[in-house]
Amino acid sequence: MDKVRIGVIGMGRQGQIHSKNIAYRIPTAELVCASDINMEFVQRIEVENVDLYDDYRKILERDDVDAVVIASSTDTHEQIIKEAAEAGKHIFCEKPIATTLEAIDEVLEVVEKKGVKFMVAFNRRFDPTFKRAREHVENGNVGSPHIINITSRDPAPPHLEYLKVCGGIFFDTTVHDFDMARYLSGDEIVEVYATGNVLVDERIGELGDLDTTMVVLKFESGAVGSINNSRKTGYSYDQRVEVFGSKGCAQAFNERPNQVELTNPEGSHIDVPLYFNIERYPEAFFGEMEAFANAIANNEEPPVTGQDGRIAVVLSMAAKKSYDENRPVRVSEIG
Amino acid sequence: MDKVRIGVIGMGRQGQIHSKNIAYRIPTAELVCASDINMEFVQRIEVENVDLYDDYRKILERDDVDAVVIASSTDTHEQIIKEAAEAGKHIFCEKPIATTLEAIDEVLEVVEKKGVKFMVAFNRRFDPTFKRAREHVENGNVGSPHIINITSRDPAPPHLEYLKVCGGIFFDTTVHDFDMARYLSGDEIVEVYATGNVLVDERIGELGDLDTTMVVLKFESGAVGSINNSRKTGYSYDQRVEVFGSKGCAQAFNERPNQVELTNPEGSHIDVPLYFNIERYPEAFFGEMEAFANAIANNEEPPVTGQDGRIAVVLSMAAKKSYDENRPVRVSEIG
Amino acid sequence: MDKVRIGVIGMGRQGQIHSKNIAYRIPTAELVCASDINMEFVQRIEVENVDLYDDYRKILERDDVDAVVIASSTDTHEQIIKEAAEAGKHIFCEKPIATTLEAIDEVLEVVEKKGVKFMVAFNRRFDPTFKRAREHVENGNVGSPHIINITSRDPAPPHLEYLKVCGGIFFDTTVHDFDMARYLSGDEIVEVYATGNVLVDERIGELGDLDTTMVVLKFESGAVGSINNSRKTGYSYDQRVEVFGSKGCAQAFNERPNQVELTNPEGSHIDVPLYFNIERYPEAFFGEMEAFANAIANNEEPPVTGQDGRIAVVLSMAAKKSYDENRPVRVSEIG
Amino acid sequence: MDKVRIGVIGMGRQGQIHSKNIAYRIPTAELVCASDINMEFVQRIEVENVDLYDDYRKILERDDVDAVVIASSTDTHEQIIKEAAEAGKHIFCEKPIATTLEAIDEVLEVVEKKGVKFMVAFNRRFDPTFKRAREHVENGNVGSPHIINITSRDPAPPHLEYLKVCGGIFFDTTVHDFDMARYLSGDEIVEVYATGNVLVDERIGELGDLDTTMVVLKFESGAVGSINNSRKTGYSYDQRVEVFGSKGCAQAFNERPNQVELTNPEGSHIDVPLYFNIERYPEAFFGEMEAFANAIANNEEPPVTGQDGRIAVVLSMAAKKSYDENRPVRVSEIG
Repeated sequence: MDKVRIGVIGMGRQGQIHSKNIAYRIPTAELVCASDINMEFVQRIEVENVDLYDDYRKILERDDVDAVVIASSTDTHEQIIKEAAEAGKHIFCEKPIATTLEAIDEVLEVVEKKGVKFMVAFNRRFDPTFKRAREHVENGNVGSPHIINITSRDPAPPHLEYLKVCGGIFFDTTVHDFDMARYLSGDEIVEVYATGNVLVDERIGELGDLDTTMVVLKFESGAVGSINNSRKTGYSYDQRVEVFGSKGCAQAFNERPNQVELTNPEGSHIDVPLYFNIERYPEAFFGEMEAFANAIANNEEPPVTGQDGRIAVVLSMAAKKSYDENRPVRVSEIG
Repeated sequence: MDKVRIGVIGMGRQGQIHSKNIAYRIPTAELVCASDINMEFVQRIEVENVDLYDDYRKILERDDVDAVVIASSTDTHEQIIKEAAEAGKHIFCEKPIATTLEAIDEVLEVVEKKGVKFMVAFNRRFDPTFKRAREHVENGNVGSPHIINITSRDPAPPHLEYLKVCGGIFFDTTVHDFDMARYLSGDEIVEVYATGNVLVDERIGELGDLDTTMVVLKFESGAVGSINNSRKTGYSYDQRVEVFGSKGCAQAFNERPNQVELTNPEGSHIDVPLYFNIERYPEAFFGEMEAFANAIANNEEPPVTGQDGRIAVVLSMAAKKSYDENRPVRVSEIG
Repeated sequence: MDKVRIGVIGMGRQGQIHSKNIAYRIPTAELVCASDINMEFVQRIEVENVDLYDDYRKILERDDVDAVVIASSTDTHEQIIKEAAEAGKHIFCEKPIATTLEAIDEVLEVVEKKGVKFMVAFNRRFDPTFKRAREHVENGNVGSPHIINITSRDPAPPHLEYLKVCGGIFFDTTVHDFDMARYLSGDEIVEVYATGNVLVDERIGELGDLDTTMVVLKFESGAVGSINNSRKTGYSYDQRVEVFGSKGCAQAFNERPNQVELTNPEGSHIDVPLYFNIERYPEAFFGEMEAFANAIANNEEPPVTGQDGRIAVVLSMAAKKSYDENRPVRVSEIG
Repeated sequence: MDKVRIGVIGMGRQGQIHSKNIAYRIPTAELVCASDINMEFVQRIEVENVDLYDDYRKILERDDVDAVVIASSTDTHEQIIKEAAEAGKHIFCEKPIATTLEAIDEVLEVVEKKGVKFMVAFNRRFDPTFKRAREHVENGNVGSPHIINITSRDPAPPHLEYLKVCGGIFFDTTVHDFDMARYLSGDEIVEVYATGNVLVDERIGELGDLDTTMVVLKFESGAVGSINNSRKTGYSYDQRVEVFGSKGCAQAFNERPNQVELTNPEGSHIDVPLYFNIERYPEAFFGEMEAFANAIANNEEPPVTGQDGRIAVVLSMAAKKSYDENRPVRVSEIG
């Protein structure tokens, strides 16, 4: 089987990570070219023998490119996805697909019409710890899920500039946890209730956003769940989940940088969890790209679909509406 | 200082536990007498030289009794508390004080008028693990609380007969967790949103009750919280709390019967947590009684007041209303 | 069945613990009387209606005493055991039985001749954690033991006065671990090699003793083992064991006073293990006394025999000889 | 600064790992060429644009090669090291340097005379967990080390063919733990006592080897230690260390493949530790190579010297002698 030939569009932090994984760690894939509107960014690439462009269209024009990774800014996704689909390229796209349901639906229609494969980057599904939690659900160890609790807290808030454009905490942070809730349960969320507050940084409140939130989930099966988010732990990335069911309870704890415990008269001490997504999820970033390459190589549906990307946005919208109106919101109210 | 002379009213399981603690483990207290309308129950007592009655009024008539422990059935609390207060006895009362706000308010008024000390049995506040979590909040290690998550699940549902009279899961189970949320945070809850389902046993649903619930809390300080309850884990008592704040996160895990880990090709294995409240909370049952005896001996206010007992019931009522109307309910709506 | 009527001889710390357990927690036993040459000590008793003496012979003379607990100083054990056996009393004796093999053998002979039951207080066998480790060996989860590692370290050295008379670290500390090694493995030790040093306190070295030791064990079955001891951790009692075998590995960790973990930017922190034997082994002190009372009540052999007491002393002697001569010593060299 | 240009000699499993790390993960190094007497092996390389040879001398002849990695079979080390040193190449060599002290001393002399840098592959020093344990010693958290315990057990014995030529368990397995003991303590071992047995597989005994061992260490500082080894856990790689000192105790536990705990009525369960060195030590294999490349790039002494390699072999010889003669052996007896 020939290798899947990939071009990466957008060579910021995430594009660089994908590039190295494609080039070095995925035998079914090959990194052919990369682009960024900022040529400085693209030149930081740590892989050799790759064609570099400042225009993604150069990538789309190449016949020897089978698939593209879209890691450019969110506002460019819609346009690039459409052009890539038109050019017959398979697509791996960072989340969110787009910021409005209309745009997402348009994009997914084009993708479907052109028959290209499309995968959204919900990387956490490929984290070995969360995968193992999911396995315990899938293989029946947990039984029917009754309660799902997700803790997802960042070590520190992003810059204010980012906060202004990220769409708010439900779209920027909780969106991942909505996908995690669906992934872990294998179930659909039918209603959400969201509350929250500004407890970390007043400037976040001045932007009309929240920094501390609690969301309640009701699933189709009747299971209930909760997601709690914070923009700042101070200590590190706090990423834990729990699926409690009729037969058992699977808990996923944080990953630590080492397994050393120091005991002295003050107590027993271990190092804080891994700091943030770069430290915590390298295997997840690798795993999602490997899954994408393998899906194309084997002509199979990628494991995270455009529909998955759409639903997570719908749930974020429902959460926002619930918070704004301080009432539970049916997901069907959104669309 | 003379010992506090105590009579125990109601010698079921809880009365027996209190009796032994008073007699054997609390140097400031002395067990003088005990009563139960069922003389068989009172005769099961494992302490010697204690006067036994089938009528609690015999206890209230004795001049050499300083205080009573009321561990009889809930429907008798109101009457006994009033008579005990009239007789000038200090009172330790199992929760709930009574089942209506009117009754509670009447009782608390009598208690106040007569100037006797009154303590409600929220035993978990005296569990060494939850006390330590509270200490981390009190001494500032956690900073300002932002998020409080409480997991509280029983190993197996009670008998249907009990379920019929217990008032429903919010009054029977969540009531403890409402108190825990107040205790841990040192804050008041101003709004609740409750949802839930019948996932464990259909017969619970037929009683109009729930067996799986999720409650969201909003605190006066702006903190948010969640309580998740289940009537059945299958594995044992699952009692964990977490207080996440501006400076750190205090997590309280389950207690295990031993500290042995067995590793074999199937994995590493440890025994399930302690089975239920009798196994998990012996030190808490002791600690609450010790605190009561010491409060009387030192003429101090007991650490859990009638007001604490009242608020927990109000919060349970708010949760019930929230569930019934599927909307967030302000605590001030209740009274 | 009548209760086993017990008199306690020696009312120091250990005698007091045994007295309360007999009186309050063991339904098959009854505390009849207690003695100490120091009447102040015996009067500290926290149990009522017990006859108190300053002469243990008063206890031995009573017909209504079935058994005695000998918790007086080691140098009195030989004499008291002999007299108690002559008086037909069953005997529970703190370790060591005596300080010379001759004395031990004499004592055991008298005990056997008089047909009284005799139990040595190796309390750790009754600790829930070590019992669970033993269970994993007994029920085959560990398979054939291959390697046994025992860590046994005190929080702080005892007073110099005690150190002068305790017989040295191998007789005072390692003796417990030798018994633990036999208990866990169900096997006999045939050879030991002991080394050590003075690293904690020079004054211990000036007494000709060690404060830090490492002993290698060879078992009859061919298994090997190690025991490491220290007189001072600074943090608390460090009591852990591990049995590694053909099918798995059972590890027993320290017990903590609570299950709370605090995570802040410096790391995750839990409280130090329980401080010393009083804190760590209350259930073991109870368990050994319960086992003794039940053995007498049921006319069975107690679970820790005089022979067990003798072997632990022999192993301590072998360790001392090994250290003195810096060579492995066969246990059969001792006697 | 120019990249360090490296050729890898011996492209078995370890050579392949080193090649990929050099090519992809170490910015200061560049993989120029690779060789193996078996051309099939060298062609398995997963790095592109590398010159491949079946004769290592082709590598030594190239002027554009600064350093070599020797990952060929142990019996070839002596010859290749000498030739590489003569050719002025810096050398990274898998352990052991050679199998006799004479050969080691000759080799180290040549290396010194030629002034090339020389590093021995004690990879475990670069494992994040063991590095953290060492840090706790180095930064004073542990105080003066008093007791060092090392557990090092393989998941399953190697093939008999390998067992025949590996030099015995002390040279093949314990040798790593001797280095770990020196690394953790920063101290030298002056005496060892070794015992052991054949409990895993009789055929290992028939080869005159052991499969289960216990070694006692005495350090120059007066600290004591133990190393326990087994050829077979059945469950996975069991690699733990503990340094107990005057101020605290640093324990290093096993690494697990994920952080999920499943609780059901049978207990709480986590997955077995990472299976073997390939799974457990990828970061250590990377770290040692990075350290080597950086040492050359910065013209510094590599962190693991030829002397370190020599001492580990001397200690293995002392252990063998101790076992054979069943007595403690001074390291100075060996040379």
